Amino acid sequence: MSELSYNVDKKLVLASGRAHPELAEEIAKALETELLPMSAYDFANGEIYVRSGESVRGKDVFIIQSFPAPLNNWLMEQLIMIDSMKRASARRITVVAPFYPYARQDKKGRGREPISARLVADLFKTAGADRLISVDLHTAQIQGFFDGPVDHLMAIPLLADYIRGRVGSDNVTVVSPDTGRVRVAEQWADRLGGVPLAFVHKSRDLTVPNQAVSKTVVGQIEGRTCVLIDDMIDTGGTISGAVRVLKDAGAKDVIIAATHAVFSEPASQRLAESGAREVVVTNTLPIPESKRFDALTVLSIAPLIARAIKEVFEDGSVTSLFDGNV
Amino acid sequence: MSELSYNVDKKLVLASGRAHPELAEEIAKALETELLPMSAYDFANGEIYVRSGESVRGKDVFIIQSFPAPLNNWLMEQLIMIDSMKRASARRITVVAPFYPYARQDKKGRGREPISARLVADLFKTAGADRLISVDLHTAQIQGFFDGPVDHLMAIPLLADYIRGRVGSDNVTVVSPDTGRVRVAEQWADRLGGVPLAFVHKSRDLTVPNQAVSKTVVGQIEGRTCVLIDDMIDTGGTISGAVRVLKDAGAKDVIIAATHAVFSEPASQRLAESGAREVVVTNTLPIPESKRFDALTVLSIAPLIARAIKEVFEDGSVTSLFDGNV
Amino acid sequence: MSELSYNVDKKLVLASGRAHPELAEEIAKALETELLPMSAYDFANGEIYVRSGESVRGKDVFIIQSFPAPLNNWLMEQLIMIDSMKRASARRITVVAPFYPYARQDKKGRGREPISARLVADLFKTAGADRLISVDLHTAQIQGFFDGPVDHLMAIPLLADYIRGRVGSDNVTVVSPDTGRVRVAEQWADRLGGVPLAFVHKSRDLTVPNQAVSKTVVGQIEGRTCVLIDDMIDTGGTISGAVRVLKDAGAKDVIIAATHAVFSEPASQRLAESGAREVVVTNTLPIPESKRFDALTVLSIAPLIARAIKEVFEDGSVTSLFDGNV
Amino acid sequence: MSELSYNVDKKLVLASGRAHPELAEEIAKALETELLPMSAYDFANGEIYVRSGESVRGKDVFIIQSFPAPLNNWLMEQLIMIDSMKRASARRITVVAPFYPYARQDKKGRGREPISARLVADLFKTAGADRLISVDLHTAQIQGFFDGPVDHLMAIPLLADYIRGRVGSDNVTVVSPDTGRVRVAEQWADRLGGVPLAFVHKSRDLTVPNQAVSKTVVGQIEGRTCVLIDDMIDTGGTISGAVRVLKDAGAKDVIIAATHAVFSEPASQRLAESGAREVVVTNTLPIPESKRFDALTVLSIAPLIARAIKEVFEDGSVTSLFDGNV
Amino acid sequence: MSELSYNVDKKLVLASGRAHPELAEEIAKALETELLPMSAYDFANGEIYVRSGESVRGKDVFIIQSFPAPLNNWLMEQLIMIDSMKRASARRITVVAPFYPYARQDKKGRGREPISARLVADLFKTAGADRLISVDLHTAQIQGFFDGPVDHLMAIPLLADYIRGRVGSDNVTVVSPDTGRVRVAEQWADRLGGVPLAFVHKSRDLTVPNQAVSKTVVGQIEGRTCVLIDDMIDTGGTISGAVRVLKDAGAKDVIIAATHAVFSEPASQRLAESGAREVVVTNTLPIPESKRFDALTVLSIAPLIARAIKEVFEDGSVTSLFDGNV
Amino acid sequence: MSELSYNVDKKLVLASGRAHPELAEEIAKALETELLPMSAYDFANGEIYVRSGESVRGKDVFIIQSFPAPLNNWLMEQLIMIDSMKRASARRITVVAPFYPYARQDKKGRGREPISARLVADLFKTAGADRLISVDLHTAQIQGFFDGPVDHLMAIPLLADYIRGRVGSDNVTVVSPDTGRVRVAEQWADRLGGVPLAFVHKSRDLTVPNQAVSKTVVGQIEGRTCVLIDDMIDTGGTISGAVRVLKDAGAKDVIIAATHAVFSEPASQRLAESGAREVVVTNTLPIPESKRFDALTVLSIAPLIARAIKEVFEDGSVTSLFDGNV
Repeated sequence: MSELSYNVDKKLVLASGRAHPELAEEIAKALETELLPMSAYDFANGEIYVRSGESVRGKDVFIIQSFPAPLNNWLMEQLIMIDSMKRASARRITVVAPFYPYARQDKKGRGREPISARLVADLFKTAGADRLISVDLHTAQIQGFFDGPVDHLMAIPLLADYIRGRVGSDNVTVVSPDTGRVRVAEQWADRLGGVPLAFVHKSRDLTVPNQAVSKTVVGQIEGRTCVLIDDMIDTGGTISGAVRVLKDAGAKDVIIAATHAVFSEPASQRLAESGAREVVVTNTLPIPESKRFDALTVLSIAPLIARAIKEVFEDGSVTSLFDGNV
Repeated sequence: MSELSYNVDKKLVLASGRAHPELAEEIAKALETELLPMSAYDFANGEIYVRSGESVRGKDVFIIQSFPAPLNNWLMEQLIMIDSMKRASARRITVVAPFYPYARQDKKGRGREPISARLVADLFKTAGADRLISVDLHTAQIQGFFDGPVDHLMAIPLLADYIRGRVGSDNVTVVSPDTGRVRVAEQWADRLGGVPLAFVHKSRDLTVPNQAVSKTVVGQIEGRTCVLIDDMIDTGGTISGAVRVLKDAGAKDVIIAATHAVFSEPASQRLAESGAREVVVTNTLPIPESKRFDALTVLSIAPLIARAIKEVFEDGSVTSLFDGNV
Repeated sequence: MSELSYNVDKKLVLASGRAHPELAEEIAKALETELLPMSAYDFANGEIYVRSGESVRGKDVFIIQSFPAPLNNWLMEQLIMIDSMKRASARRITVVAPFYPYARQDKKGRGREPISARLVADLFKTAGADRLISVDLHTAQIQGFFDGPVDHLMAIPLLADYIRGRVGSDNVTVVSPDTGRVRVAEQWADRLGGVPLAFVHKSRDLTVPNQAVSKTVVGQIEGRTCVLIDDMIDTGGTISGAVRVLKDAGAKDVIIAATHAVFSEPASQRLAESGAREVVVTNTLPIPESKRFDALTVLSIAPLIARAIKEVFEDGSVTSLFDGNV
Repeated sequence: MSELSYNVDKKLVLASGRAHPELAEEIAKALETELLPMSAYDFANGEIYVRSGESVRGKDVFIIQSFPAPLNNWLMEQLIMIDSMKRASARRITVVAPFYPYARQDKKGRGREPISARLVADLFKTAGADRLISVDLHTAQIQGFFDGPVDHLMAIPLLADYIRGRVGSDNVTVVSPDTGRVRVAEQWADRLGGVPLAFVHKSRDLTVPNQAVSKTVVGQIEGRTCVLIDDMIDTGGTISGAVRVLKDAGAKDVIIAATHAVFSEPASQRLAESGAREVVVTNTLPIPESKRFDALTVLSIAPLIARAIKEVFEDGSVTSLFDGNV
Repeated sequence: MSELSYNVDKKLVLASGRAHPELAEEIAKALETELLPMSAYDFANGEIYVRSGESVRGKDVFIIQSFPAPLNNWLMEQLIMIDSMKRASARRITVVAPFYPYARQDKKGRGREPISARLVADLFKTAGADRLISVDLHTAQIQGFFDGPVDHLMAIPLLADYIRGRVGSDNVTVVSPDTGRVRVAEQWADRLGGVPLAFVHKSRDLTVPNQAVSKTVVGQIEGRTCVLIDDMIDTGGTISGAVRVLKDAGAKDVIIAATHAVFSEPASQRLAESGAREVVVTNTLPIPESKRFDALTVLSIAPLIARAIKEVFEDGSVTSLFDGNV
Repeated sequence: MSELSYNVDKKLVLASGRAHPELAEEIAKALETELLPMSAYDFANGEIYVRSGESVRGKDVFIIQSFPAPLNNWLMEQLIMIDSMKRASARRITVVAPFYPYARQDKKGRGREPISARLVADLFKTAGADRLISVDLHTAQIQGFFDGPVDHLMAIPLLADYIRGRVGSDNVTVVSPDTGRVRVAEQWADRLGGVPLAFVHKSRDLTVPNQAVSKTVVGQIEGRTCVLIDDMIDTGGTISGAVRVLKDAGAKDVIIAATHAVFSEPASQRLAESGAREVVVTNTLPIPESKRFDALTVLSIAPLIARAIKEVFEDGSVTSLFDGNV
């Protein structure tokens, strides 16, 4: 007899980088498992060392990493983790990046610019990633940057259902803070019950040199509760400026909703002082106590991600998670 | 002596597929050269045969193809041309695709959908393309689908300057036909002199089953000349529907402007009967006599492409062509 | 405990393009399963849209496509299907192409020609195909164009056994219609019982300009039943010309046998009027009623393909299907 | 000023492996240059070491290797030479393999066979080869195995013109020694002035177990001078068997012509004793004195290869060398 | 129902090249299985043919090859075996190369040298290898040359435990024969019980032309039993020279230990006459009777490799085999 | 006429990351050119943006980056610069990394470790780098990690000639601080005039649990001037420990020499207090004033790198720079 047999069981392993361990723990708990024990530390010059504490040979490995500052550090950590898992014979490696790094650099706005979001996808692939799970990509086209399956989860249902519970549908307008996210605002408007739509617009006359830029609102917002939406809040300048414009234009109330709380300085202060009634975000990025403020509500993204991991592992359908029928 | 020397001259060669020879001829003329003689014909079962009539060894080859129906045919023809040039030792191969095929399938809108625009980029690469020149990609992120340099030219200046010459800036509003192109409408508004912005919006209540969709205009258009813009006009349903909505909402006048005149049936009839005062497009796609109508104006894209090819060949900067400072 | 287990079952899924649904149905029936429900339609400008109606995550997917005219359309459809299955996390994707497209362009006959058959293999690979099943490739070397496993099935036993049942072995000669398929004719001759061999030959004197080409038969055919074989019949010119040459040279009777019935115009008429007693082909390509004629016999290739798929899925040996010991 | 300029000259460098230095010297002489000085030696366990004696940075390098026994040794030597040139920054590397190794293993004849000819093409590519020059590939499809330009030179004109000078065209028949090379025999027949064609045929009845194989000639050869052609002569069994069959069938005279003189034992003896009037080959492989015999004529392939290298280097057209219009 | 299910079992298959069948048999026996039946033979010009005698479709294939002279032959044989297994649909292919070929060419010592060890890794990958198992690589960095998992086994424990059983730890010094293996000597010293360390050193004054090289010992060896270690013994020149230097410097006794017995001429004679008390090696390479001598001890590496294959197949941890805790 | 000609000049462009602008400036000055103007800044969350201020189309671009802490930041910056240059059509991109990041992680010391040095090479390649220039790689095998030309420069001549000028050759011993760099110490010893060699050795008895490690010197150092060498000094623990061991063992004097001054805390203090007479390093990494101390001498590596860039650009030979014959 010239062959040996061996019964196959698929085994799932959850590993986490060091950027946001709380989220990884929540996901593990939701899956009723534990995180893979990892050694990870920094050399004094910034080089990172990682090593799994258990064998991953033949396992279906999910590597969770979040991307707050210092983002490049966490990116290299995840790449090195992938490399170590690949060389340790993992059967399949899935990158779980709830917030996709460099998502805003997804095109050449001008000549000679990089397309860093594509570069990141290629770096993941080169290191050895087979698949990718992410939440609310800055543009959906980023799915096409990765050469393999991407499960693109949406937090809109989570956020919208919470907000609907707070303010209902009547007298509500969904507002995009600029012209680039009106399509997403439309999805929100549908989800909130077919409510009206508006956007804030920076206008400028290219034919007149040095002309000042002015901001105006297009759409009905007077006397209404505005739900001002975005995919991420970085320094909070655009979004708090938009609150002011809406208030000046007669909005009754403003609620801000965004998936990714980047919250670079001075975002927290700006948001707290913006006049918005409430700011609703998820925990795709860690939000330290020092950046929290009264009007802030943080919803957990862990159940959504846990469900996606489970479906991917068990070869189920994740489509319902895309559609937002959570 | 163990080496031979040879003086190097870079040589440009322009080749054209059979989809839109008039455009290729115009480009060649603008460059003061002639098209490479090609044999190309179809076998009865649809297979295509191509062969260059002259040596392309060591040449800098630009392969121009347009993508009207039957689009898949022209795509395979260009891929086969690339293959033949690669095997015939061309030094560098640039795909010139004024209209990028499958540009609208640039993301997974739902699970299990293809991302055909990325597939097309990979097919070009696999066949042997080194670089890509295109005009007004459906989304700018498609640049990131191709693993190599992409020169993304913009027709907005060409179209906007023509329209400005016709209607000036006063009393003009730029209108996006849906929520997905408001960003582009904003670029138009700036180019036309900081004019106002509006968009047409399909609203629907996801929380109520089978609810009808209704269309509304958001923004000031009453009594104004509306410039309704899009990147492409396919069957013309959306855009002529938008004309009606604008007229119903009190617009004085509507001018339609789009880069790519796909003009599938029954676009011409719809546009002619839409009530629009003028429809302005470019010739990135061929427009046969049978599809032309009185209110149609076709501007030639050839000078823009010729200039880009020249800069690419001579290693000049194409940035000014991106910026629209034509 | 830091891992979750899950029992693995391999699942086979059969998907079909739109070129020849009858064949796919026959194969599915032979496998006692059903075809995967697919949405597939054409946009007016020729772009194709496809989407699977069920999850294919983790499945062993076989994508069946046939390649009648418009061939490039069906090729792009299959590439897009592969892309969508890859992005939907299929475990393994096998292209089933009973007739391999562009098989005749398998070498550079002259300088600057493409090798489209290699290009097609690379396009399948780029889109995401892991393996390939095909029948009677124009040349066996095409197996080497694909970077992965190829199961090359042979229809000769199916055809030869049918013909033997009709005419026996006595007084039979196998004839190749040109000098390029004498090797294949030899396999036929052995299969039919060691019968004699002949071929038709176009002779020309390259040393005399503009000399006419004349056709002659080499081999014994006088008073014999000739089995004239080929891998495919396209316009039928060569093969019906060969019938005439054989008849003129004294053949008693001619039976034509070919695997792939391309049947481009005016093949059916030519064959019907050629004087051949019977024309035997398989259904690797669809043959519409309008192209059928009295002397035509169509044998089904579905059982052969179904068996190959079953063996591939169950990791059995397909070698017996190569050898023709069906 | 932020750039430095430098005038570019293309420089050709000819390097040779150790398998057949005489041929490389002849080629260098025809190009009026000298071979690159190389250190190359074998370690006792068979490992090979090579190093160029001069810088090849930025040069257009042609690496000539022939493939007599021990063939695998010469193949590894060429791969290592390519690797060293790539790492030494050669601008472009062309493999010159007058005889392509493993050419006969170009398909899976049975299941589980390798396709070694494709493997070799991939090994060349992996090591760093950009292009390939070869002579009379066993099958033309091998061109498609290499992912890049292949210049496929033909020795038929060289051989045929020599033979024509010896025997003229009258009373000559071209004979293929088996059914697989009838197409090539047809090219010979045309080149010799439209002379008749014949082939030797092994017939066997697959339906009768253990039936003996018998050889017969198909075509007119009685009383004629037969030119028996092949691409290569290995042990000489087939070809000298064919001489006997032809003589038995009444041929007046037999001349053997082949491009590649593999001449494995006992080829020389067999050929010398075969009864053939003359055996004409080229020097794509070295033929040591011990393997030469009276009736053997060796034509030099060096002028043909030198001309191809010159055209490739100067970006000229090699097509005329394919067509055989030397 | 549109899918078929099939229960999955992983199946291991052991295949062996022809270089060292005894080792492969020992490994098979240790795994209680049998070697895959293979057809393998050489054509007269050196080309190799291989074909598996059983189906490997879906199997986990381990291909064992050793690399004595003629090494390039065995390397091509293994590459062709890999190619045939890949095309025959093996599920995963692991190269088992107890002695890694070309390991000493792991860097460019001077400009224009190849890095053949990296080339070999790429050739394995190109042919279709997924993973690699090897023993005592010349430098551990070679692991990084292969783009995939490498299991790097260590023979030190096997060798050191044997030697310790012979001479204990007292009065023992471990000696590196040159400056490049002092690190490895240190591992030996620790394994033997913290014994002292020494090395032989070739000194030369680069500032004085043509100065002779002299060899000296650095470290305490006088009156001690020296264990002279190396990864491989090729012609035995360095190592037997080191024995002499040690003896001259007052060593009481010398035992030589090395993993790979390359034993090129005249290694056996040199070692036998070197004055070493014992020479201990493993059978990673075949050692024919003619090369054996009285003082030679050969330990079998088969149990170590068998255990590694078992762990890889069953997805266990091989780490303990790296650590040397055998 | 169907082609246009254009005279080719190669143009060199030097670009620099932000990690060590002084070195880049020195290199530019040595080449009598200026650095390419670049925009580069950090977003608040750590994302980096870069864009060249001038066209690089068709240019030969050298991108200089140094790798002090925060190293991952500078690595991502260089990758993004490469991506932007590739997409801006640079003709060739050379990474100039005087200190190679993650060089110490060049092998799997234990199972499940990453090989980060290989990962870094692959990341450079993926981003678009064609070639690599580096100085004194931690191990020379790292050259083989990059799939393309690597110019590996050596600083030993620079350092050794300086030290020789200080202390001559008499009474000098070269000392390796551990067993891993004895080979490099040997090169130093030769360069300093054939002086003696020694090393520091950590010994431990693996057969006794928890046994303490002790350090000893092997070689003659009593009463001599020791040149203690290393490729890099990180926290300075090993090297300053070695100074102590040498002093304790009777060394007269110790001079430390290393190429890369990583100088992580508390390296400067340790070195200053180590008792070493002088510490000689190069400026491959920036050394801020705060880390400098009296006994520190910094030699500039800029002339060596400038010469290498010039040779690479002009296709000259860099071999002399490898050999250290500066």
